[in-house]
Amino acid sequence: MGDASPSGGLSKTRIEALTDGIFAIAMTLMVFDIKVPVVTRVAGFSLRHELWQLWPRFLAYAISFVMLGVYWVGHHNQYHYIRRTDRVFLWINIFFLMCASSVPFSTSLLGQYPAESTAVIVYGLNLMMLGGFLYAHWWYATHDHRLVEKDVHPELVTLAKRRILIGVVASMVAICLSFVSTRLSLAVFTLIPLLYLLPGRIDRHWIRSLS
Amino acid sequence: MGDASPSGGLSKTRIEALTDGIFAIAMTLMVFDIKVPVVTRVAGFSLRHELWQLWPRFLAYAISFVMLGVYWVGHHNQYHYIRRTDRVFLWINIFFLMCASSVPFSTSLLGQYPAESTAVIVYGLNLMMLGGFLYAHWWYATHDHRLVEKDVHPELVTLAKRRILIGVVASMVAICLSFVSTRLSLAVFTLIPLLYLLPGRIDRHWIRSLS
Amino acid sequence: MGDASPSGGLSKTRIEALTDGIFAIAMTLMVFDIKVPVVTRVAGFSLRHELWQLWPRFLAYAISFVMLGVYWVGHHNQYHYIRRTDRVFLWINIFFLMCASSVPFSTSLLGQYPAESTAVIVYGLNLMMLGGFLYAHWWYATHDHRLVEKDVHPELVTLAKRRILIGVVASMVAICLSFVSTRLSLAVFTLIPLLYLLPGRIDRHWIRSLS
Amino acid sequence: MGDASPSGGLSKTRIEALTDGIFAIAMTLMVFDIKVPVVTRVAGFSLRHELWQLWPRFLAYAISFVMLGVYWVGHHNQYHYIRRTDRVFLWINIFFLMCASSVPFSTSLLGQYPAESTAVIVYGLNLMMLGGFLYAHWWYATHDHRLVEKDVHPELVTLAKRRILIGVVASMVAICLSFVSTRLSLAVFTLIPLLYLLPGRIDRHWIRSLS
Repeated sequence: MGDASPSGGLSKTRIEALTDGIFAIAMTLMVFDIKVPVVTRVAGFSLRHELWQLWPRFLAYAISFVMLGVYWVGHHNQYHYIRRTDRVFLWINIFFLMCASSVPFSTSLLGQYPAESTAVIVYGLNLMMLGGFLYAHWWYATHDHRLVEKDVHPELVTLAKRRILIGVVASMVAICLSFVSTRLSLAVFTLIPLLYLLPGRIDRHWIRSLS
Repeated sequence: MGDASPSGGLSKTRIEALTDGIFAIAMTLMVFDIKVPVVTRVAGFSLRHELWQLWPRFLAYAISFVMLGVYWVGHHNQYHYIRRTDRVFLWINIFFLMCASSVPFSTSLLGQYPAESTAVIVYGLNLMMLGGFLYAHWWYATHDHRLVEKDVHPELVTLAKRRILIGVVASMVAICLSFVSTRLSLAVFTLIPLLYLLPGRIDRHWIRSLS
Repeated sequence: MGDASPSGGLSKTRIEALTDGIFAIAMTLMVFDIKVPVVTRVAGFSLRHELWQLWPRFLAYAISFVMLGVYWVGHHNQYHYIRRTDRVFLWINIFFLMCASSVPFSTSLLGQYPAESTAVIVYGLNLMMLGGFLYAHWWYATHDHRLVEKDVHPELVTLAKRRILIGVVASMVAICLSFVSTRLSLAVFTLIPLLYLLPGRIDRHWIRSLS
Repeated sequence: MGDASPSGGLSKTRIEALTDGIFAIAMTLMVFDIKVPVVTRVAGFSLRHELWQLWPRFLAYAISFVMLGVYWVGHHNQYHYIRRTDRVFLWINIFFLMCASSVPFSTSLLGQYPAESTAVIVYGLNLMMLGGFLYAHWWYATHDHRLVEKDVHPELVTLAKRRILIGVVASMVAICLSFVSTRLSLAVFTLIPLLYLLPGRIDRHWIRSLS
C-alpha cells in the first residue's frame, strides 16, 4: 500500500463515520419528539384515542425516517466511487449533514401542524436542500472526474443525478400544492419514499458494484 | 483483493455502522425519558418515595435495553454470514431499524401506563415487528442461499429462525394476556429477555464462528 | 488469515462500536439535561446568578463525563487483550453498557439534589455497578486465560483489577459518608476522577502495548 | 504485521470513534433544543411569525454546527499525523471532547439570550476552550516530535497552530466586544466559520496528505 491510498481511505472512513453518526441520531431522535400523551382520566379508551390523534406525527416520522434512509444510502453509494476529497467537497458534506440534522425539527413542525402551509413549506424546503446538497456533492465529485476514478460509467453519473432530482422536484411540487391543499402536499410527501423503494435502472450499476 | 469483495465489505460495514448507531442511541436515550422527579418538599424520604414510584419505568427500560441488545446481537450474528446485499435486503434493514428506533416511544408508553392494555399492546406489537423484520431479514438472506455462502449449515438457519420466533410468539402471548391482566403481560415481557439469556443449541454454531 | 481470526475480530469490532456509541451518547447527552435557565426579568445580573446556581449540575456533569471517559478507556484497554468472546462475556458487556447508559439519569439526580443522601446513594451505586461489571468483565476474560492470550502478563491482570477496585471502593466510601454529610460525598466523587488522572504502575504495560 | 503497529492503530481508531460519536451527537442534538413553537391561534401568519422569531436560535445553531465541523476536521487532520498516544494526550482529548459536548448548552444559551453579555461570554469561552484544547493537543503531539513522525513538515506544525489560534483570538475579540454591543459579538461569531471556509496555505499540506 502506498502512502496516499491509506490516508485517503482514512479520510473517507472518518467522513463516513460522522455521516453515519449524524444520520443514526437524526433518525432515532425524531421519535423522541413524539411525546407520550398525558391522559388525565386514565382509561384505555382515552389513551387509545390520544394515540390515534398522533397519526400526523407518526406519518411525518415514517416519511422522514425513510427519506433519511434514502439519502443515507445515496450518500453511501456515491462514496463508493469517490477516491479523493478536498476542501470544497468537505464543506458540501458539512452543509448536507446540517440539512440532515435539521430534519427532526422540520418533521416535528409538520407533525404538529400538518394543516399549516408554513409547516409544509419548511419541511419541503428541508427535503429540497437535502437533495440539492446531495446533487451538488455528486456533481462536484464527478465533474471532469474530479474526485472519482476515470472508469466511472457516464450512465451511472447521469442516472444517479436523475434519481436525486426526482426527490427535489417532488418536494417542489408538494410545496406548490400546499397553496391549494396541505392534504395534497402530505400525499406527495408520502409518495416520495415509495418512488425510491421501487427498483430502477440504476440498480444494475449498484448491484454490480456491491455484489 | 478482487473488486467485488472489498466493495461488498464496505457496504456491509456501513449498514452495520448505521445499525450500531441507531441501536446505541435507542438504548441510551430510553433512560432520558425517565425524568428526575420534581419534589416540592425536598426531603430524603420524599425523593426516595418518588424514585420508587418510577419502578414501572425502570422495569420497562431494563426489558427494552436487554431486548434491543438481544436483537442487536441477532442482527450482528446474521451479518456474520451475509456476503451480498441487494435493494430488498436494504429495505428490510431500514424497516427493522425503524422498529428499533420506535422502541423508546413504546417503552415510555408502557412505563407510564403499565396498567393500560393499550400501552401493553403497542409495546408488544413493537417487539413483534422488530422480531418479524429480523425474521424476514434472515429468511430473505438465507432462502436459496440468496445472500449467504453455500456452506451455511441448514441447522443454523433453522435454529436462528426458531430463536427469533420465540420472542415474536412470547410478545403475542403478552398481548393476548393483556385482555385478562396487564400484570401477566408485564410478567411475560420480563421473561422474554431471560429466555434469550439462556444458552441454546445455536451456541454451538455461534461459538464455532466467533471463537 | 484463518477463518476464525477475522470473524472473532468482526465480533470484537462490533461490540466496540456499540460501546463507543453508547458512551459517546451518554457523555454528550448529560449536558442536555442541564436546561438553560428561564429568567423572567431578562437582565445580565439575573442570568449570571441563575447560571451560578447550576454549579452542582455542572460539577456532576464533569465528574460523570470524566468517569465515563475513564471506564471507556478501561474497557478499551481490556479489549486490547481479548481474543475471543462468548455468551456470558457478551452479557456482562450488555449489563456494563446498561449501567453506563444509566449514568445520565443518576447524574441528573445528583445535580438536582446534591444535598439529598438518596441522590448520592443512587449515584454512588451507579458508579459502583459500572466498576463492578468492568471488574467482572476483566475477571471473566482473564480467569484461566479464558478469552485472552496465554502471554498476558499476570502483573497486568492484577494491576488492572486493582485500578478498577479503587473506583468501586471510593464510591462505597462516598455512599457511607452521605450519612454524615453529602458535601463530603461530593468531595469524594470529585476526587475519584483525579485518582485516575494520575499515572500509575499500569502505564508501563499500557504504553508498551499502545506505542 | 508487527505487534506495535496494529495496537497503536486500534487505539487511534477507538479514540477517533468516540470523537466522531460525540461530535455527531453534539451537532445533531443542538437542533433538538429548538422547540417547535406552540401557537394558540393556529393560523399560517402566526406560525410563520413565531418561526421568524427563532432566528437567533437558528443562527447560533448554524454557527455552532459549522464550528464543530471545523474542529472535527481539525482534530481529524491532526490525527492523520499522530503515530502514538499516551496518558496525557488521552486526557487532553477527553477535555477537548468535554468542551465539544458543552457546545449545545452554550449554543442554547446564546440562542435564547442573544442580547445578554453573559450568554455571549459563556459561548465565547466555550469556543475558546475548544480551540485551546485543540491547540494543546497539537502542541503536545508535535513538540519534540513526541507523538508524530520525524518527517512532519515544520511549516505544517506552525500553520496548523496559527489556524487554530485564529478562532481562539476571534472568540476573545467577540467576548471583549460584548461589553460594547452583543450585536457586534454575534457578527464576529458569524464571521469565524467563514474564516475557516476560505482556503489557506495549509491546504497545500492537507491536499497532499489526503489525495
